[in-house]
Amino acid sequence: MNKISVVGLGPGGLDEMTPKARRAIEQAEVVAGYNTYIKLIENILGGKKIIGRAMRQEVERSQLAIEEALAGRNVAVVSSGDAGVYGMAGLVVDMLLDLPETQRPQFEVIAGVSAVNAAAAVLGAPLMHDFAIISLSDLMTPWERITRRVRSAAEGDFVIALYNPKSKRRTTQLAEVQTILLEFRDKDTPVGIVTNAGRPGESKILSTLENFTREEVNMFSLVIIGNSQTYVKAGFMITPRGYERSQPLCD
Amino acid sequence: MNKISVVGLGPGGLDEMTPKARRAIEQAEVVAGYNTYIKLIENILGGKKIIGRAMRQEVERSQLAIEEALAGRNVAVVSSGDAGVYGMAGLVVDMLLDLPETQRPQFEVIAGVSAVNAAAAVLGAPLMHDFAIISLSDLMTPWERITRRVRSAAEGDFVIALYNPKSKRRTTQLAEVQTILLEFRDKDTPVGIVTNAGRPGESKILSTLENFTREEVNMFSLVIIGNSQTYVKAGFMITPRGYERSQPLCD
Repeated sequence: MNKISVVGLGPGGLDEMTPKARRAIEQAEVVAGYNTYIKLIENILGGKKIIGRAMRQEVERSQLAIEEALAGRNVAVVSSGDAGVYGMAGLVVDMLLDLPETQRPQFEVIAGVSAVNAAAAVLGAPLMHDFAIISLSDLMTPWERITRRVRSAAEGDFVIALYNPKSKRRTTQLAEVQTILLEFRDKDTPVGIVTNAGRPGESKILSTLENFTREEVNMFSLVIIGNSQTYVKAGFMITPRGYERSQPLCD
Repeated sequence: MNKISVVGLGPGGLDEMTPKARRAIEQAEVVAGYNTYIKLIENILGGKKIIGRAMRQEVERSQLAIEEALAGRNVAVVSSGDAGVYGMAGLVVDMLLDLPETQRPQFEVIAGVSAVNAAAAVLGAPLMHDFAIISLSDLMTPWERITRRVRSAAEGDFVIALYNPKSKRRTTQLAEVQTILLEFRDKDTPVGIVTNAGRPGESKILSTLENFTREEVNMFSLVIIGNSQTYVKAGFMITPRGYERSQPLCD
């Protein structure tokens, strides 16, 4: 069929993958993706050729996937969450568009339930108003740019979701972020930490801006920091949309 | 079963609704939601009681839904996209948590494919790096707070996604946003407009920061403004993740 689909798997289980995404994988003869993601969907991969590589070989994996499509096969490139958010979509689409239009395989980006939405659902409703997503990974982005973004998002009173908050190599960034945010927000601002959202071993912690860096955070965690209006109620984290209950909504 | 599920439908079609979301609706005896959303899923609503109201009656709709659950019925409250992003989750969870724990129905928020992810997939890969989501609806948020957020997001060089960019009543805000952004970003910064993402009549426009306010934008549109690195290539909008192709990725 000579088509590449860049597929967002959702948080993990087949139960949160859209039918459109699942069909793209089922129809593919070749599936490419990071080994961890391949494992999440191994039940539907029987008989397919797998291009699974470690994280540091994304470019090579994308190239192999495109070569398979150029050789006439139907290919799915998979990322967990939404493939368009720190996933594989940008690289694959860019490389495909380098090909002359007459040679280019058909392609489609298929959206998935993003990690931040999955984590928010576990916490209650922390993203009900404007929010900003920031990755703390400084491997390809200078740390100064990341802290500038944290500062801007704090100034704007955005709810802030932190991707890649910590890894084995990066352990000090979260405390730096905390210091910046404490310049702008109350120390009691709610902070939610969800680890393995939508996957086996899912856990959540509710903490505060003053204390959250003492909690267990790892590379499978997503950290959501409330805005000035966010509150915790009976174990859930809620950001109001700005209305009074007695008032009409929306426009 | 006495359970309330707050369900994100995804962008529109059943093909982009997760199995978990669909099951919650199928198992519900009562489904509550804005009429437009109810219509999107009418094929799976046979025999169910529907609480569909106009937009301005969200509080009443939530109350009725909770009363149905308290009367022993299984209820789904639905929003398009993700229910936790400008949707019904905040209000419903807040109202449920007012009830004493012994009386409170079980509840769950079920994440969906968010509108911004659906729109991004149509445009290519504009959200590959840090981004901010801002609603321009000033019905419940003072306009000064909204413009402050636009300014902060511009200062932080975030990709910016605008929800509710325009309505019949609100027609001037988009030009104000444009004026602010032009203080910070090049006039040729790519801007993507997706209307009815993932629904019948889906359309996309690629424009620039200088020109996008001349394009057709309505209340079913989502506007995505690139950061300083975003580019357009062969009709698609891509924000790089910050790597060179020859370089290894991730950590």
